[in-house]
Amino acid sequence: MIYQRVALIGLGLIASSMAHAMRRDGLAAHITGTSRSSETRAIAREVGFCDDIVETAGEAVRDADLVVLAVPVGAMDAVAREIAPKLKPGATVTDVGSVKRAVIEAVAPHMPDGVHFVPGHPLAGTEHSGPRSGFAELFENRWTILTPGEDTDQAATDTLRRLWTGMGAFVDDMDADHHDLVLAVTSHCPHLIAYTMVGVADDLRRVTDSEVIKYSAAGFRDFTRIAASDPTMWRDVFLSNKEATLEILGRFTEELFALQRAIRTGDGDHLHDYFTRTRAIRRGIIEAGQDTDAPNFGRGTTR
Amino acid sequence: MIYQRVALIGLGLIASSMAHAMRRDGLAAHITGTSRSSETRAIAREVGFCDDIVETAGEAVRDADLVVLAVPVGAMDAVAREIAPKLKPGATVTDVGSVKRAVIEAVAPHMPDGVHFVPGHPLAGTEHSGPRSGFAELFENRWTILTPGEDTDQAATDTLRRLWTGMGAFVDDMDADHHDLVLAVTSHCPHLIAYTMVGVADDLRRVTDSEVIKYSAAGFRDFTRIAASDPTMWRDVFLSNKEATLEILGRFTEELFALQRAIRTGDGDHLHDYFTRTRAIRRGIIEAGQDTDAPNFGRGTTR
Repeated sequence: MIYQRVALIGLGLIASSMAHAMRRDGLAAHITGTSRSSETRAIAREVGFCDDIVETAGEAVRDADLVVLAVPVGAMDAVAREIAPKLKPGATVTDVGSVKRAVIEAVAPHMPDGVHFVPGHPLAGTEHSGPRSGFAELFENRWTILTPGEDTDQAATDTLRRLWTGMGAFVDDMDADHHDLVLAVTSHCPHLIAYTMVGVADDLRRVTDSEVIKYSAAGFRDFTRIAASDPTMWRDVFLSNKEATLEILGRFTEELFALQRAIRTGDGDHLHDYFTRTRAIRRGIIEAGQDTDAPNFGRGTTR
Repeated sequence: MIYQRVALIGLGLIASSMAHAMRRDGLAAHITGTSRSSETRAIAREVGFCDDIVETAGEAVRDADLVVLAVPVGAMDAVAREIAPKLKPGATVTDVGSVKRAVIEAVAPHMPDGVHFVPGHPLAGTEHSGPRSGFAELFENRWTILTPGEDTDQAATDTLRRLWTGMGAFVDDMDADHHDLVLAVTSHCPHLIAYTMVGVADDLRRVTDSEVIKYSAAGFRDFTRIAASDPTMWRDVFLSNKEATLEILGRFTEELFALQRAIRTGDGDHLHDYFTRTRAIRRGIIEAGQDTDAPNFGRGTTR
């Protein structure tokens, strides 16, 4: 048991997975959940991963030892305002947003004295979303990054770290701005690029929908998985990690133009060197246990 | 039994998978293989997926009823010149190149009268390459596209189609230029973009290698799989499908710039609409049996 009472604000993929994992591992005595959407609340009641589902965030945080903000980044400010007067002294507030500086700016100013805000981000997810998509194993073997400030209570951070470790995650501490840059590279830009490529394919009328779909196994289908992620969440990520995303996109287009030029001018050596270099990084990811070496992610045939 | 004697020129992922599949399903009485590399020939002998491994393409095609050109697109012309005088009258020659117009231009002029050239492209593969990477199930539930010309022998095309069907593939006929455009969308551009993004990540010294690797599960790792594909094969694809690739890349950068501008100006509606639209195409791919609906391709935890 790590926390007596946990409040989950938002009941999507991450929050529902946390609930499943906390229950499986006996990490919380009581879990209260809430969502702005009555449909989401009804599904969460039906699936039954919380002890209690309530209508408002203010109600949910009452007596909670840990409050988890699991709403899109753009909704953090409003939720923080709403819960601030209801928080129990000594409570820990954390979040699971994909961007950290913007969340800190939205949440920290509203936190009362004696409440510990420890920003966090589990680097785990799938292309599915909503309260039915959660599962207890989501965080296993994945990293969760905490970005406590210099004056964040050490004991509160340590306890939260134990919760994540208990759910199967590895935990790292990081500076919030550095987090936002790293994630721009490993997540935000790849998502934007995948969304773009899928959008282009969708637009091309000479290549009919059915051809794009039938022949997707040649590479494109991997992009469509990423581009099937939650639109609201991703809109907010880009709007709130603007600077780092645009910087990395600038680098990306620069490199892409160099490769385009190599194609146009027939510079095969440039292409071959580039494509050889990128192989090594894949090897590193497999050796670090962050992906499978099985061909095509081991999915094999799909029928 | 569909062919008495099959010759495989090149012994990489595709050719070795064909050999495994033909043997499993009893589609060829005798399979001869060859590769320019003595190391590849030695491995192929060791794995044992051919009845016979010979040193040259000219030797391999002797008496063959079907010759499969499974070399990088840039090597097709030289191989076609080498085998042309040795081909058996009435033989069928096919290829498995990812680009069709350039292969037709490289191969067709060398084909003697009475030899049937039926260009082909199995839309199947993994990020692995070489003679050890083949497996009999590679083509199951995947499409193979044939691009016969108007004067291609119908019986030769039909027999080749039966071979592919026998190995578990679906088969479509298509115009060669249209093939090259469709594949630019579903394969060539996605690969170039993935290579680019992985190259950018590799370049960024502020984000150390170890961070890019540790935190890759947030989206980036999917790109690294694609960017681990065979460099020589992909160099040749881009050099030989220049026009379609550059056209689709132009569309891609146009769209990317529009999304970048939406991020810069904070136009959340534009982003949200775009990200919503791309979800539908994923659904189509899953319904068409071309990918799994399991979260993260079903790979789950990787340790």
